[in-house]
Amino acid sequence: MNKVKIVIAGPRGNMGKEAVKMVAKTEQFELVAVVDSKHEGMKLEDLEGFSGLGLDVPIYTDMTACFTEHNADVLIDLTAPAYGRKHMEIAFEHGVRPVVGTTGFSEEDITSLRTLAEKKGLGAIIAPNFAIGAILMMKFAQMAANYLPDVEIIERHHDRKLDAPSGTAVKTAELIAQVREAKQQGHPDEREDMAGARGADFEGMKIHSVRLPGLVAHQEVIFGGIGQTLTIRHDSIDRTSFMPGVKLAVETVLKLDTLVYGLEHIIE
Amino acid sequence: MNKVKIVIAGPRGNMGKEAVKMVAKTEQFELVAVVDSKHEGMKLEDLEGFSGLGLDVPIYTDMTACFTEHNADVLIDLTAPAYGRKHMEIAFEHGVRPVVGTTGFSEEDITSLRTLAEKKGLGAIIAPNFAIGAILMMKFAQMAANYLPDVEIIERHHDRKLDAPSGTAVKTAELIAQVREAKQQGHPDEREDMAGARGADFEGMKIHSVRLPGLVAHQEVIFGGIGQTLTIRHDSIDRTSFMPGVKLAVETVLKLDTLVYGLEHIIE
Amino acid sequence: MNKVKIVIAGPRGNMGKEAVKMVAKTEQFELVAVVDSKHEGMKLEDLEGFSGLGLDVPIYTDMTACFTEHNADVLIDLTAPAYGRKHMEIAFEHGVRPVVGTTGFSEEDITSLRTLAEKKGLGAIIAPNFAIGAILMMKFAQMAANYLPDVEIIERHHDRKLDAPSGTAVKTAELIAQVREAKQQGHPDEREDMAGARGADFEGMKIHSVRLPGLVAHQEVIFGGIGQTLTIRHDSIDRTSFMPGVKLAVETVLKLDTLVYGLEHIIE
Amino acid sequence: MNKVKIVIAGPRGNMGKEAVKMVAKTEQFELVAVVDSKHEGMKLEDLEGFSGLGLDVPIYTDMTACFTEHNADVLIDLTAPAYGRKHMEIAFEHGVRPVVGTTGFSEEDITSLRTLAEKKGLGAIIAPNFAIGAILMMKFAQMAANYLPDVEIIERHHDRKLDAPSGTAVKTAELIAQVREAKQQGHPDEREDMAGARGADFEGMKIHSVRLPGLVAHQEVIFGGIGQTLTIRHDSIDRTSFMPGVKLAVETVLKLDTLVYGLEHIIE
Repeated sequence: MNKVKIVIAGPRGNMGKEAVKMVAKTEQFELVAVVDSKHEGMKLEDLEGFSGLGLDVPIYTDMTACFTEHNADVLIDLTAPAYGRKHMEIAFEHGVRPVVGTTGFSEEDITSLRTLAEKKGLGAIIAPNFAIGAILMMKFAQMAANYLPDVEIIERHHDRKLDAPSGTAVKTAELIAQVREAKQQGHPDEREDMAGARGADFEGMKIHSVRLPGLVAHQEVIFGGIGQTLTIRHDSIDRTSFMPGVKLAVETVLKLDTLVYGLEHIIE
Repeated sequence: MNKVKIVIAGPRGNMGKEAVKMVAKTEQFELVAVVDSKHEGMKLEDLEGFSGLGLDVPIYTDMTACFTEHNADVLIDLTAPAYGRKHMEIAFEHGVRPVVGTTGFSEEDITSLRTLAEKKGLGAIIAPNFAIGAILMMKFAQMAANYLPDVEIIERHHDRKLDAPSGTAVKTAELIAQVREAKQQGHPDEREDMAGARGADFEGMKIHSVRLPGLVAHQEVIFGGIGQTLTIRHDSIDRTSFMPGVKLAVETVLKLDTLVYGLEHIIE
Repeated sequence: MNKVKIVIAGPRGNMGKEAVKMVAKTEQFELVAVVDSKHEGMKLEDLEGFSGLGLDVPIYTDMTACFTEHNADVLIDLTAPAYGRKHMEIAFEHGVRPVVGTTGFSEEDITSLRTLAEKKGLGAIIAPNFAIGAILMMKFAQMAANYLPDVEIIERHHDRKLDAPSGTAVKTAELIAQVREAKQQGHPDEREDMAGARGADFEGMKIHSVRLPGLVAHQEVIFGGIGQTLTIRHDSIDRTSFMPGVKLAVETVLKLDTLVYGLEHIIE
Repeated sequence: MNKVKIVIAGPRGNMGKEAVKMVAKTEQFELVAVVDSKHEGMKLEDLEGFSGLGLDVPIYTDMTACFTEHNADVLIDLTAPAYGRKHMEIAFEHGVRPVVGTTGFSEEDITSLRTLAEKKGLGAIIAPNFAIGAILMMKFAQMAANYLPDVEIIERHHDRKLDAPSGTAVKTAELIAQVREAKQQGHPDEREDMAGARGADFEGMKIHSVRLPGLVAHQEVIFGGIGQTLTIRHDSIDRTSFMPGVKLAVETVLKLDTLVYGLEHIIE
């Protein structure tokens, strides 16, 4: 089998660095070039943090030049929201399938990029969140809510986090709300003797946010039925937890002929 | 909407009692008769444990007589393995869809009953396990193993349980083994300084059985990936935990025109 | 060793029934009589729920008569608050050490009963809560707070519970507040985007109350320090969970020569 | 109040670096000098990893010279086993109280160093493990075993760990075995249908070792009683989790006039 030829844009960012390592370690992947905002003409192994990894890979500042000089199957774009759309268009022009980890796409962007992908017959994936464990948690939570509609969410993060509840908790609640009929949980006459004890309310579901030193990023979704509870829990301790998702996206984009937005849509 | 007319066979058993209560409490269900091994001609409300519930429901000892005198949509059969096949055949003859909670069906039984169901165009469900939370846990575990293949199972039960590991743990491991490639987990050079520390081995997966007073029936399936873990946990404290599954089966059997074996196949 | 001779007052209540069984099963304990509000002159084995246990134990309605006719070492009083004080005084008069599970004692009651106990040189224990696991949880939480002052409490109960937070959660927070310096936890600029997400505030500690069907009575106390968390969790599924505490109280009261209020003071 | 004057030996090791930061951040502590194997005459801020922290602190290679030129209250020794004994003797000569994190002391070492400490009237602490959360877990586990003698241990670590069970799990089991009477747990007739399912056996207690990517270092000690369980859990994600223990040791050593071996003996 031929290796999948990959270009990574944004190799020096936190996720970029991990993506370079993941591609280097994956047998069936091959890193053919990177696109950076500087260091034109240098090799990746010349940059701090990449030496000693045998990465004899050219650095381009111009993506068009990169794709002109190198055949690539997939672009992994981990740059900034400002560049996502442009980079996807350039990739499509050169027959390259983009896997994009940036946010900030409007619905119009997505619609027009999908049209472009389908016209070219090329797959594309935009994923604001590559944490596959978190995405599985959300998917399972939505499925479970069909059968066990009473649910509460407890999310736990380090105590430097400013906002509560977390974005993942809110997104989980939204996904559950899509499938279950609106319902008031708990005893109809329940009362809070101390304000806030029962947590935040999202269409009858309660969300609780714990903040403590020693925590990283954790969430439990707890479903209660008569005589039983079902709990789905995700614990994330590291940004490298995103790489299995990036890898899955690369493998999947090769089989697509349209644009998919959100990793949850490629999980079966 | 017309109510679903239901006959329950085996109303005095543990599950039967709970099924009677579940049907009585469910708005869209109607209990029209019960089939018992005795008490012919009495009413359900005359039996110990059923008085005061307003169950003016006739008791039959002969299922054929029951279905001749009462129109029914669904039979909930919670009797014993010896009767399951016969009861299903009688139900099919009268155009009644059976939901059967007994075990002991051979593969030939299932094949011939499925043929019969399809010939009559009637749905039928046989479910050795109605605990919907446990079934969701197994289904999610199988799905997750596609993406996070490193997994261990911890099951916890009361200390009067004789066998280890539990049937649910073994079934979960089998379902996972169906989807993931065989793999050796843990460090290749890992060693047990005390025999048994690393648990039982099922195709590279480890299973651990905890037995303590104060526990009932619990299982955790833990998936590990780089920087993250995903945990699916079911806690069961009561046999009434089976009723949401029975209810789901009744609702689903009305839409089927074949026999389904195992509740996991009607969960989407 | 001589067996400990025990009288139980209130044998037909929920806790009383369990106490009878516990005493009957404990090798070094002997049930010599019970005190009930009725059934004078009958035997305990004549009452519903006690037959077949070989409880050839006389029933008294008059505690003084009971102690006059039977030597006893310990009275286990599981009646109602109205009787607690009177029963203790009668016990002291007869040289019997009381273990009392009723609530409703005023501070004056306790002071005067303690004076009486010390004058007689007799031990006595009043325990509003015999759940030894919960008491250990509270004691450990207080100890841990000396070293890891950042803490949050999550309590989980069935969804028929009216009040939030639970009494145990509030008592735990009070015990922690006694030993740690007041402190504001979390980020100083943290914000709730949905009211209640961060839970109830008790002197900087957050308390979260979960209510779901399938839960019974559970509490987690989570301490966070740099790079680590320490969690103390109690799960109670049954009222029989009180019996190890009753047994401990009986064993301990024999060695005391004063009155102790609260099981936490006899745990070392 | 005067600040506590501290010398750190071994500032460039992993724990040494964290100790330098901890001392620098602690209001009532003052770092007066460090002892290193090289860099004599330089300042700590000149070394890689310490610049920009305002650490105008002299580096010595000779501990005697260091204590001659600087008054110190406490020595934090995080060097290697070979130096521990010698460093403690030098500290005692100069009236400095040592807090030592190295292992490898024989019983004779400890006895003779304790004699020396008491002769000088100086406190000293040797702690092979500074993880205060883990030490609290072990202490609480030992206390709980007095009241709830049925217990199992589940320890979870990353899958690069070679040995099972972990040292902490074995130490916890030993501490529990000291206080509970020997007992066979579980059903007397229980059987393993798959070898190892019930874990390793330590005097009737079972120990289970989980190894998965995404885990760091975690342990649960689960006590079961009738109708209840009590769980004590420690999750460690980072070596900085040792610093609260080092800080506690420094604060405590000032009040001691003998040598204490093991942090568990200074926790009340």
